[in-house]
Amino acid sequence: MSYKIAVDAMGGDNAPAEIIKGSILAMKDDETIEILFVGDEDAIRKELEENGYKKEVKIVHTEQAIDMDESPKKALLAKPKASIAEATRLLHKGDADALVSAGSTGATILAAAQNLDMVKGIERSGLAAIYPTARFDKSTSGFSLILDVGATLHCSSKQLIHFAFMGSYYVSHILGIENPRVALLNIGEEETKGGEILTKTYRYLQEIESINFIGNVEGKDIPYGVADIIVTDGFVGNIALKMMEGVGNLLKQTGKYAFKKKLSWKLGIVFLASGLKRLKQKTDYSEYGGAPILGFEKLVIKAHGRSNAKAISNAIKVAKRSIEEDVCAHISDSILNFNKQHKIDFLDI
Amino acid sequence: MSYKIAVDAMGGDNAPAEIIKGSILAMKDDETIEILFVGDEDAIRKELEENGYKKEVKIVHTEQAIDMDESPKKALLAKPKASIAEATRLLHKGDADALVSAGSTGATILAAAQNLDMVKGIERSGLAAIYPTARFDKSTSGFSLILDVGATLHCSSKQLIHFAFMGSYYVSHILGIENPRVALLNIGEEETKGGEILTKTYRYLQEIESINFIGNVEGKDIPYGVADIIVTDGFVGNIALKMMEGVGNLLKQTGKYAFKKKLSWKLGIVFLASGLKRLKQKTDYSEYGGAPILGFEKLVIKAHGRSNAKAISNAIKVAKRSIEEDVCAHISDSILNFNKQHKIDFLDI
Repeated sequence: MSYKIAVDAMGGDNAPAEIIKGSILAMKDDETIEILFVGDEDAIRKELEENGYKKEVKIVHTEQAIDMDESPKKALLAKPKASIAEATRLLHKGDADALVSAGSTGATILAAAQNLDMVKGIERSGLAAIYPTARFDKSTSGFSLILDVGATLHCSSKQLIHFAFMGSYYVSHILGIENPRVALLNIGEEETKGGEILTKTYRYLQEIESINFIGNVEGKDIPYGVADIIVTDGFVGNIALKMMEGVGNLLKQTGKYAFKKKLSWKLGIVFLASGLKRLKQKTDYSEYGGAPILGFEKLVIKAHGRSNAKAISNAIKVAKRSIEEDVCAHISDSILNFNKQHKIDFLDI
Repeated sequence: MSYKIAVDAMGGDNAPAEIIKGSILAMKDDETIEILFVGDEDAIRKELEENGYKKEVKIVHTEQAIDMDESPKKALLAKPKASIAEATRLLHKGDADALVSAGSTGATILAAAQNLDMVKGIERSGLAAIYPTARFDKSTSGFSLILDVGATLHCSSKQLIHFAFMGSYYVSHILGIENPRVALLNIGEEETKGGEILTKTYRYLQEIESINFIGNVEGKDIPYGVADIIVTDGFVGNIALKMMEGVGNLLKQTGKYAFKKKLSWKLGIVFLASGLKRLKQKTDYSEYGGAPILGFEKLVIKAHGRSNAKAISNAIKVAKRSIEEDVCAHISDSILNFNKQHKIDFLDI
């Protein structure tokens, strides 16, 4: 048995060097992993050679690639053969069963939307970010998943419920958290908060037996990790995720800019630095393999743009696991089953 | 000349004691301030006496009051004579020209909506929170204003533009920041990001000469204070504001719960504590007088629920300033002027 994973060799700040290195790492660690490289063949072969990898690999050559800061829409129009576009087409054709890219998030989502089918039962895709929380007890990983963080800006109740299904399945089967807690991001804990769409979503989620719905959580709960999966629309999720990024950056810089004359503050930062380093180890994005884009016929993993070889290798292993667990088909089944049992197809919500 | 300010004597965690103390502080500091106390007359008189305040004061007696954790809607129905309801009615009648309450935010906004008119030109009210940022240069206060944070959950372009007008006027005339920078909270910097409503809002804001619009900011920019006013809808603003609260709480607790065995981490926290104390002084809500609720015929200031006397006193001084500056009328004028100049009344957006 082998697991075919397409890798966008040209996507990411450190492409293609770290992407190829990471792919080699993954293939060496796990011989069932078979990589389909998409990108500039010469560049890919050169990196393989430099890393002393001698086995035969599959490469689909394309000279076009999308930079991190290009407008996804324009870039995909201007470069129809961009590596990420080719990779999603190959995925749809069946040449691979999952895809890893560290390239532009927008281009990855858009290429997937253009070239992949949605899985049956799902209307819109969700980009699920995994973020570190203050929860470091032994039973959990200390990570939570928040979705959507930018694929679907404004969502119906139906779409939010689908996100709950997708997030819950992914966290339990891929991240290995049993019976993960699903929460809805809202402006208050009461069922009736947040307007009609969220109130409806709340009521439906309460009825879904396969989802461990714990109710609404508020903005203040996000960093605490009170839920394993936080469901929200793409606009709000994007703002929340980037705020966490901003606060993180700020903490790192605080020592440099603020309170320059205050010795104890500076000392605090110095001492904290080693703690932060430990925290970083716990929360390093390279550990958990990137953000899954859920809802398509096959799993696409968006690795961090700054991914190093280790991060890419982990993303590839997560992609393998998603094939093993048949994540996309199972998510589809669970939603179609729920619809059938409840004799609804969510058409009205 | 005297400035008549209604004070909800029964609202807040420390009511009525700290509310009365703070009112006395304000009246002693500034003899042009005339307070209209709304609440339990006996309790108010007792506090006045205990604080040795002998001058005549106006009190409108009511026995009903709304607790912090009551449902605003139900509480206002069950207690039609609640102090906050009475206070907003007195404001509308003209017995006072601004109102300060440290009570339930929801009840304050709802009572205002029930008993006050909107100012001409404005459709919906905005709750504007003032939050500390990483910007501590000499030219600015280090605070930014974000609105709306919960009064109007989902907004049209017109309503967002109104928030920009209101926030900009408030920050320049009450907080004293010249030509304050207004930004729109979005998922990317480009004009076309975030969907139709935000794209339209962006285009209009660019045309408004009296607003110093600097474009879109993202979630990561919020803690940096890159803008003096961040405009967003009430749902997103509420999530963002509460996230900041959550991160703040988390930082305070981190030393206790995480990395218990790591000495340097603990030391770091100890040293940081004194820095944080300084930060707290800079960012203490008692300094800037609470969150204005903008859009009504008269200004309502929602002081923090945990307000002490000093915070109440500052909120009252801000309320006085709003009367002096005639904030509500000026906001209305600037919007009506803009509509006239551009021969639009925003009816279509």
